[in-house]
Amino acid sequence: MMPFYFQDYKEMSIAYRPSHADATYDMKYGVRAVQGGGRSSARETIGRVASGAIAKKILKLFSGTEVLAYVSQVHQVVLPDGSVDHDTVTLDQIESNIVRCPNPDYAEKMIAAIDAVRTRGNSIGGVVTCIVRNAPRGLGSPVFDKLEAELAKAVMSLPATKGFEFGSGFAGTFLTGSEHNDEFYTDEHGRIRTRTNRSGGIQGGISNGEIINMRVAFKPTATIGKKQHTVTREKQEIELLARGRHDPCVVPRAVPMVEAMVALVLVDQLMAQYAQCNLFPINSELQEPLNLEPAN
Amino acid sequence: MMPFYFQDYKEMSIAYRPSHADATYDMKYGVRAVQGGGRSSARETIGRVASGAIAKKILKLFSGTEVLAYVSQVHQVVLPDGSVDHDTVTLDQIESNIVRCPNPDYAEKMIAAIDAVRTRGNSIGGVVTCIVRNAPRGLGSPVFDKLEAELAKAVMSLPATKGFEFGSGFAGTFLTGSEHNDEFYTDEHGRIRTRTNRSGGIQGGISNGEIINMRVAFKPTATIGKKQHTVTREKQEIELLARGRHDPCVVPRAVPMVEAMVALVLVDQLMAQYAQCNLFPINSELQEPLNLEPAN
Amino acid sequence: MMPFYFQDYKEMSIAYRPSHADATYDMKYGVRAVQGGGRSSARETIGRVASGAIAKKILKLFSGTEVLAYVSQVHQVVLPDGSVDHDTVTLDQIESNIVRCPNPDYAEKMIAAIDAVRTRGNSIGGVVTCIVRNAPRGLGSPVFDKLEAELAKAVMSLPATKGFEFGSGFAGTFLTGSEHNDEFYTDEHGRIRTRTNRSGGIQGGISNGEIINMRVAFKPTATIGKKQHTVTREKQEIELLARGRHDPCVVPRAVPMVEAMVALVLVDQLMAQYAQCNLFPINSELQEPLNLEPAN
Amino acid sequence: MMPFYFQDYKEMSIAYRPSHADATYDMKYGVRAVQGGGRSSARETIGRVASGAIAKKILKLFSGTEVLAYVSQVHQVVLPDGSVDHDTVTLDQIESNIVRCPNPDYAEKMIAAIDAVRTRGNSIGGVVTCIVRNAPRGLGSPVFDKLEAELAKAVMSLPATKGFEFGSGFAGTFLTGSEHNDEFYTDEHGRIRTRTNRSGGIQGGISNGEIINMRVAFKPTATIGKKQHTVTREKQEIELLARGRHDPCVVPRAVPMVEAMVALVLVDQLMAQYAQCNLFPINSELQEPLNLEPAN
Repeated sequence: MMPFYFQDYKEMSIAYRPSHADATYDMKYGVRAVQGGGRSSARETIGRVASGAIAKKILKLFSGTEVLAYVSQVHQVVLPDGSVDHDTVTLDQIESNIVRCPNPDYAEKMIAAIDAVRTRGNSIGGVVTCIVRNAPRGLGSPVFDKLEAELAKAVMSLPATKGFEFGSGFAGTFLTGSEHNDEFYTDEHGRIRTRTNRSGGIQGGISNGEIINMRVAFKPTATIGKKQHTVTREKQEIELLARGRHDPCVVPRAVPMVEAMVALVLVDQLMAQYAQCNLFPINSELQEPLNLEPAN
Repeated sequence: MMPFYFQDYKEMSIAYRPSHADATYDMKYGVRAVQGGGRSSARETIGRVASGAIAKKILKLFSGTEVLAYVSQVHQVVLPDGSVDHDTVTLDQIESNIVRCPNPDYAEKMIAAIDAVRTRGNSIGGVVTCIVRNAPRGLGSPVFDKLEAELAKAVMSLPATKGFEFGSGFAGTFLTGSEHNDEFYTDEHGRIRTRTNRSGGIQGGISNGEIINMRVAFKPTATIGKKQHTVTREKQEIELLARGRHDPCVVPRAVPMVEAMVALVLVDQLMAQYAQCNLFPINSELQEPLNLEPAN
Repeated sequence: MMPFYFQDYKEMSIAYRPSHADATYDMKYGVRAVQGGGRSSARETIGRVASGAIAKKILKLFSGTEVLAYVSQVHQVVLPDGSVDHDTVTLDQIESNIVRCPNPDYAEKMIAAIDAVRTRGNSIGGVVTCIVRNAPRGLGSPVFDKLEAELAKAVMSLPATKGFEFGSGFAGTFLTGSEHNDEFYTDEHGRIRTRTNRSGGIQGGISNGEIINMRVAFKPTATIGKKQHTVTREKQEIELLARGRHDPCVVPRAVPMVEAMVALVLVDQLMAQYAQCNLFPINSELQEPLNLEPAN
Repeated sequence: MMPFYFQDYKEMSIAYRPSHADATYDMKYGVRAVQGGGRSSARETIGRVASGAIAKKILKLFSGTEVLAYVSQVHQVVLPDGSVDHDTVTLDQIESNIVRCPNPDYAEKMIAAIDAVRTRGNSIGGVVTCIVRNAPRGLGSPVFDKLEAELAKAVMSLPATKGFEFGSGFAGTFLTGSEHNDEFYTDEHGRIRTRTNRSGGIQGGISNGEIINMRVAFKPTATIGKKQHTVTREKQEIELLARGRHDPCVVPRAVPMVEAMVALVLVDQLMAQYAQCNLFPINSELQEPLNLEPAN
C-alpha cells in the first residue's frame, strides 16, 4: 500500500481523517465541506463567542455575575484540586499566559507538554474548568430543563468535547450521602447558604446562589501529522499523512468557547426566570431577588 | 439546639433537607410540594420510562437498534473496564440481579455495599453505563444539536446526575491524538467501520454506526437517616433527622431511566434524519440506509 | 343505494361524515377515535379555556387588560358595525343572553335563527368578534412572530374556523391609504395615541396600546340531521343520516374559546416582552411601561 | 402648525409615519432603523422568497405539488368568483402582466386603478389568492398546529396583512351546514374525494388532497405622498409630508411572498408527516402515500 501525501485540502477530500467528522458528514448528507472541516471546525464557534461576550456583559451588569473558565488539565499535567481559589480567581490571572491556566507553575508545565507533542506531530487534549460567581438564585427548571442539563447540552455541543461534570462530578460517586450533602446555614446577611458546595451551585435543577462549577473534557485534536490508516470516499483503504497548519492542543482556545456557552445558557435562564417568577411573585419572602448584591 | 425529629412529610416541610431541591424550589417559586419531594422525586420519571419503552420498540423494529444500560459502579465497587462485552451483553444478564450489573461477582459486591450503607442510615451513588447497538448512521446535527449534546441534556435532566461522558470520556484526555484516533477500514460487507471506538459511536456530532456508549454519574441519595444541620423556611438553623422510606442507592433504579432518555433522543433524531435526509437523498451512494442489517 | 341510519357512534365509525375530520384522520394516521370526533371535537378546547381563565386574570391584574369576545353574526343576522361600543362593552352585557351577543335585539334574532335551523336538522355558522382593552404596548415581534400572526394561528387552531381578520380586515382593502392611515396625536396624559384604529391596535406586528380587535369566522357545524352522500372507510359510497346530540350553531360556545386563545397569546407575549425589553431597557423615555394605568 | 417636509430618511426619523411601524418599534425597543423602515420594510421578505423557491421545488419534485398565488382584488377592482379556474391556471398566465392577475381584462383595470392612485400620491391595497394543487394528504396536526393555523400564522407574518381566510372563508358563514358540507365520493382511481371544496382542501386541520385555497388581505401602503398629522419622538404634534420612492400598491409584489410562506409551511408539514406517519405506518390501507400521482 502506497503512502498517500496530502498537499492541501483538495487532496484531503478523498480520504476520511480518523476521528474527524469527514465520514459522518458524508454518511448523513452525502456532501461535506473539506476546507478546514467546514462546520466541524472550531472556527464555527466564533458566533458563539461573540454573542457570549454580550451575555457576559448582561450578567455582570444585572447581578454582578461572572463567568470564568480556565485550563485545569493538559494531557498528563493536572492542576491539583483546590489550587485555584474560585472565590478570587481573576480573568487577568487566567489570561496571564498562553494556556490560560491561572497557576503559573502549572501553566509552564502545560506549555512544555504542548511543545513536546507539537514537535512529534502529535496532539493532546485536556480539561476546562468553568465557574460562575454570584449566579442569581432560581435559574433552571425542575424537570427536563434542569440548569445542569442545559449547561451539559451547551458545552457538549462544542467540538471535541467528551465529557461534562458539575459539582462533585464523577468523583462524588465515591462519597457517601453524609459526606456529600451540603449542609445549610444562614449567613451574616440573613441569606441561606451551604457550608460546602458539592452540589456545584445547583440543587434540583435550580441554582442556589453558590458558585456554579463544572469541568469539560476535550479530546486530543483529531488531525495529526502522523501516518494513519483510513479509507477514501470510495471505501478504498489507504494510508493518510495530513499536512497543513493544525493545533496540537485546542484546550486553551476552548476556554472562551466554554465561557460563552455557559453565559448564553445563564442569560436565557435569567430571562425565563424573570418572566416566569418576577412578573407575578407568589411569595416574595421566599423568592429572593435575582440581582442580590454579591454574597461573597 | 434541640434535635428535630420528623415523623412524616408534614413536619419535614419546615426544614430544607441538605442537597435536596427543597430550598431551591422555594427560592424560585415560593412554593413546593413536600410529599416525596414532588417534582424533584425520581417518581417523576415514570412518564419518561413509559414513553422510553415505546421508543425502544420503535428502534428495535426499525433498525434492530438496542439500548441497554447497566450499573458499572456502586460507591467504591467499580466494574473493571472491559469486563462487560458490549457486543454481546443482554438484557437478561443485566436483569439477573437486583443491582442490574451483568457481572454476577460484582453484582454481589455492589449488593453488599448497599446493604452495609443501608444499615448505617447512609446512602451511596455510582455510575450507569449505557450502550446503543446497531444505531443508525447519520443521527445528530453538526453544530448545536450534536448527538452527544442531546444525549447529555437528556440524561443530565434525570434527578441526582452529576456527570456525563461518552466514548473515551474524561479518561481520553490522558491519550495523545495518535493513541486516541479511531482508524477507518472497510469491513467484509463493504461498510466503513472503525477499528477502535474511542469516539463512542459519534463523530462530529453524528452517529457513525459503531456502538454508542456513555457513562452517567449519580450522586449518593440526599435523604439519609443521619442527623444533619440545616435551616427552616424561616431561616432558623436546626438539626434535622429525616425519617421515612428512602433508598440508600438509586443507581440500579436509574438504569431504566437512562435507557428511556437515550431511546427517546434516538427516536427524535431518527425522525429528524428520516425527514431531512431520506425524503430527498442527495448522494445515495454515500448516504447509507438508516436501517442497515446489524453489522455486528 | 340503501339509506344508512346511524344509531350511535359505533355505527358511525364506518362512514366519513362530510366536512368532518373523520376522513383526514384516517388518511393521516390510519386510526381515529369515533366517539364525539375525538380530538376534532370542540370538547378538546376545555384545557384551552381553563388555562385561558388564568391568563385573563394575569392580564387583568398586571395591566388592567381585558379580553372580551362576543357573537357579532349568526348566519344572516349581522350585528351592524358600530353597534357595540368597544370602549364600554362589559362581560355582563355579553353574558346576558344565551347567544352571547351584547345587543339584546340582535340576540333575539340570532336565537330565532338558531331555533329555526335546529328544527330542520340543519346547522349555521357565524362570526365572533374579540377585543382587548388596555393591552400593554410593545407586545409582538417585528418579523415572523408578529402579534397578528400569533393571534391568527391561535384562533385558527380552534375547530370550525374559516377566517381571521383584525383592524380594518378585508373591508380595509377597499380604502385608500389616506383613508386608512391612523393619525397620531398626544393625549392629555402625554401619551402617543391614534385618532382612528383601523390598525386594530397592532402596527408593524407590535401592539400600540389602542384596542386590539379581531373577527373570527366559524363555519356551520358539519354534523347535521339530514341525509348526505358519503363513503365508508372501505370506499363504498353510501347515504348517511347521522343521529345523536349535535349543536346547530357552535358560535356562542366559541366565544370563551376565542377569549382563551387570545389571552394565552397575550400572556406569552407579555412574558417575552418583560424579559426581552424590561430586564434591560435601552431607552426608557421611549419604551413606555407595560402596565400603564388604563388610558381610556 | 408648520408643515414639515421630509427630504430624506434622516429627517423622517423624528416623526412617526401614521400606520407605520415607527412608533411601535420605539415603544418596544426604544430604537428603530429609519431607512426604508428597517425590519418593517417588505424588503425583509427576500430571505423568505429565496427559501420559498427551494420549498416550491421540493414540493414539485416530491408530489407534483404546485403553489400558485395571484392578485384577485386591487382596491375596488374585484375579480369575480370563479373567473379563475384553479384546476388549470398557470404561472405563465399569472406572470403575463405586471399586477399578477391571470385575467387580462381585470389586470388592465387593476393597473389603471394603481396608476390613478399613484398620480394622487395615495395608495391602495387588495387581496392575494393562493392555491395549492396536488397537495399531499395528511399534512397538519389535529389540535394546535392545524394546517390552516400554520398557514394563517405564516401569511399574517407578512407586512401589511389584515386578514386570512381559506375555503369558504367569511362568506361561508352565510351558508347552512347542508349547503356547506362537502360530500365524499370515490373517484375513478379509487380515491376518496369531495364533490365540492368549501373545506378549502383542509378538514380537521389536515389536508384532504383537494386544492388548498386561501385569500389574504393587504391594506393600502402606509407611506403616502399626502400631508398627515402625526407626532415626533418627543411627542410634538406636527404635519408630515413624506417624500421618497414608495409603492402605491404592494399587492402584486406580495404574490411571491405569499407563495413562499405557503410553500415553506407545506415542506415543514411534509417533513413532519413523513417522519411521524411514514416511518411506521399503522394502517397502510387507509394511510395513502404522500406522493400520489396528480389526481386532477
